[in-house]
Amino acid sequence: MQTPAPSPAVLDELKAALGPGGWTQDPEVIAPALTEWRNRWTGHTPILLTPRSTEETARAVAICAREGVAITPQGGGTGLVGGQIPFGEVLLSTRKMRAVRDVTPLDDAMTVEAGLTLLEAQQAATAAGRYFPLSLAAEGSATIGGVISTNAGGTQVLRYGMMRDLVLGLEAVMPNGEIFRGLKRLRKDNTGYDLKQLLIGAEGTLGVVTAATLKLFPIMRSRAVAVVGLETAAASVELLARAKAETGGGVEAFELMKRLGMELVLKNIPDTREPLDSTPDWYVLIEIASGTPGGAEAQMEALLEVAFEQGLITDAAIAQNDAQRAAFWRLREEHSAALKPEGGGWKHDVSVPISRIAEFIDEASAAVERFHPGARISVFGHVGDGNLHYDILPGVGQDIPAFIGRWKEGSQVVHDVVGTYDGSISAEHGLGRLKTEEVKRYKSPLEIETMAALRRAIDPKRIMNPAVLF
Amino acid sequence: MQTPAPSPAVLDELKAALGPGGWTQDPEVIAPALTEWRNRWTGHTPILLTPRSTEETARAVAICAREGVAITPQGGGTGLVGGQIPFGEVLLSTRKMRAVRDVTPLDDAMTVEAGLTLLEAQQAATAAGRYFPLSLAAEGSATIGGVISTNAGGTQVLRYGMMRDLVLGLEAVMPNGEIFRGLKRLRKDNTGYDLKQLLIGAEGTLGVVTAATLKLFPIMRSRAVAVVGLETAAASVELLARAKAETGGGVEAFELMKRLGMELVLKNIPDTREPLDSTPDWYVLIEIASGTPGGAEAQMEALLEVAFEQGLITDAAIAQNDAQRAAFWRLREEHSAALKPEGGGWKHDVSVPISRIAEFIDEASAAVERFHPGARISVFGHVGDGNLHYDILPGVGQDIPAFIGRWKEGSQVVHDVVGTYDGSISAEHGLGRLKTEEVKRYKSPLEIETMAALRRAIDPKRIMNPAVLF
Repeated sequence: MQTPAPSPAVLDELKAALGPGGWTQDPEVIAPALTEWRNRWTGHTPILLTPRSTEETARAVAICAREGVAITPQGGGTGLVGGQIPFGEVLLSTRKMRAVRDVTPLDDAMTVEAGLTLLEAQQAATAAGRYFPLSLAAEGSATIGGVISTNAGGTQVLRYGMMRDLVLGLEAVMPNGEIFRGLKRLRKDNTGYDLKQLLIGAEGTLGVVTAATLKLFPIMRSRAVAVVGLETAAASVELLARAKAETGGGVEAFELMKRLGMELVLKNIPDTREPLDSTPDWYVLIEIASGTPGGAEAQMEALLEVAFEQGLITDAAIAQNDAQRAAFWRLREEHSAALKPEGGGWKHDVSVPISRIAEFIDEASAAVERFHPGARISVFGHVGDGNLHYDILPGVGQDIPAFIGRWKEGSQVVHDVVGTYDGSISAEHGLGRLKTEEVKRYKSPLEIETMAALRRAIDPKRIMNPAVLF
Repeated sequence: MQTPAPSPAVLDELKAALGPGGWTQDPEVIAPALTEWRNRWTGHTPILLTPRSTEETARAVAICAREGVAITPQGGGTGLVGGQIPFGEVLLSTRKMRAVRDVTPLDDAMTVEAGLTLLEAQQAATAAGRYFPLSLAAEGSATIGGVISTNAGGTQVLRYGMMRDLVLGLEAVMPNGEIFRGLKRLRKDNTGYDLKQLLIGAEGTLGVVTAATLKLFPIMRSRAVAVVGLETAAASVELLARAKAETGGGVEAFELMKRLGMELVLKNIPDTREPLDSTPDWYVLIEIASGTPGGAEAQMEALLEVAFEQGLITDAAIAQNDAQRAAFWRLREEHSAALKPEGGGWKHDVSVPISRIAEFIDEASAAVERFHPGARISVFGHVGDGNLHYDILPGVGQDIPAFIGRWKEGSQVVHDVVGTYDGSISAEHGLGRLKTEEVKRYKSPLEIETMAALRRAIDPKRIMNPAVLF
């Protein structure tokens, strides 16, 4: 889908509205913002707007609204589904709105602007003696506006929830150019529809998020990390239930890894080593945190003891220091990078009910084997969220380009199994340009039409990220 | 606002669609459903529909949609703002849809129908070895559909969130009579706008909730309850921050009470006694829960020790057994009932940022004293949510009817102060018939108009609870 270019007069008006430093048409400056970081999309835009305030953002959007000119909002550009790449739309970057407006520890709240990176937001919380839990691989570049607009997930969702659960208040420029001033620090406010919940995860289609008030948490006083070996994926689900009970909800991360993925990390990533003495079919990385000094370690030991007794795990190693903790986490975090030297793969970000994870893995793997015999399957992900990164690699010695060429059909094989499990074909990455069409196969006409009607109500000219969503 | 009565032909069609047992026009059967339990509203309806399934509900709504006949959905009828009382609308009760459709402990999820009471839902979770945390005084009557439609709060919000945070999936009959089948058990699903979040808290204006998949939690293994005395409300806010840090987020309840409220409980409620040896100006009831046996008691003792040392509290009593725990909780729960014998009062369910609670109480109290000298003020509520039940009683010896007559103006005095604190005039009760007009004073035209546009998009004929919201 291509969006027609705005007229020179409109471009002039946008330039005048934002003034020097508020826009650029320099191809070299714009170029990095047009390419998705995995080189899957390269877009184009007549102009890059970089407003420095909510008011400047509102001014620009108002002009576009009046003229029916389309806008693609962009944060850190780390999205994985192409939602941030313009194809003819005006590109509006929040990168110059980076203030920490306030931090109030007694409210467990802080208000930050959309262009602040997730890492900087975490650091601002820590500096105030609090913890902001959302954490993901791209946090050094991903921005608050972006993680809100995509309802980002990551590794701490099990205990703290998705970004949707971490936003107390929101400020946004609506598609008509008006400012929604919803930066409340309230925990309870039942006065009509929750507009901020509608904007969270809307992928920039209902407005431009300019600032948010985020929920903070106490800093934990003890933390324990272990890697355990299991015979089956089903055992990991039982182990999770046991871990939640044993800690009273104190599990911060619970990451499943299949032997193949571990082998590829050990093979392709330097300075990694087997975490266990054995080589089990499945691994889980468990992180427990507690408010009591020594509490997490005690809970981890109690958990592993029970798990051994019940035959849920076959091996375990508890990290003895920070370096070992980091080494364990690295084994999990390098799973994506470790696939690349194998010739790339068909990647899937799916979720299913936790209780059905093992069954799903078996059924999907059988379907993939029927579709492309010999393909290798790496499974890793957040068991506590039912969220698996289910990646398919060419078999050893198979023709890689031929394999890559079957990506679309192969993905549908996996997604169709997800569909029969009442799962989601985009657990945490969103739909963007990549999956908007495909998802229609798995959603009811009622859902699609209701979303489209809501969008028409808020953005009747469909100027906000027009190629994304319904 | 009065809704015109449906024609006899439409009533006949509704009767035929639901069949015997699915409707009644017997005034005696209908009467209890027409009166709000505090006798603030008494409505009327041409017919009470009691569908036994989602499909029957859809059939009834489809007929009303075609004919433009208005519907008021009703759950347990315990709402405090009149949203469940029809004034001419068809009354649709979910009381006959009461199944627990499934409980899957490994998913920490259960699916129940809208007419199940909150208490029954809690019991179904407990029977499966899990915990459903939402808890409020009316839980024996309040239904799941009702607590979802009003985004109910209660005493456990601090740790577990509002109802909005506890719903994984939703089934609802939309205003066109179609069924939204969103009963997913997923923790992550980023595939478009979150329709369930829009329906939660919509007070029955966007559809009829028929079933929901709820989030369950592990059962805690230790629990400690204490009542402490404090010199100021400000100290309670500091104490809360300390309690969160000391427990790593394990505080389940943190309830502030002013001396006046405590005095009225001791005076007007039988079998209650002073919890402390002293009579401080402010009290807090603290409940801590932990996954470790003995953990909650240890954390409570550590907390109170630090709090004494830092001068945050002046007195404390830890409950030694279940009976004492219940007695402490009763002092808090009887606060509303204890006001009645004093001649009633102006009641407010407000929220402000936690850090500003003490300042708010001072400023609001000064404003009330200026408006009605001598009025007595009871303040109690959920400090952790910034949610205060701020109730004003006539002064001793004052003319009670004259005082009651000033309710509307007096409330505005309080709400105007709430407004200047960026607070909410309905923290957990919703707007209903009571506050829909008043709230417009505190919301921007953009917010009101956006909500109205969303509603028109989903319910163009405005048949769902037409007098409620915007």
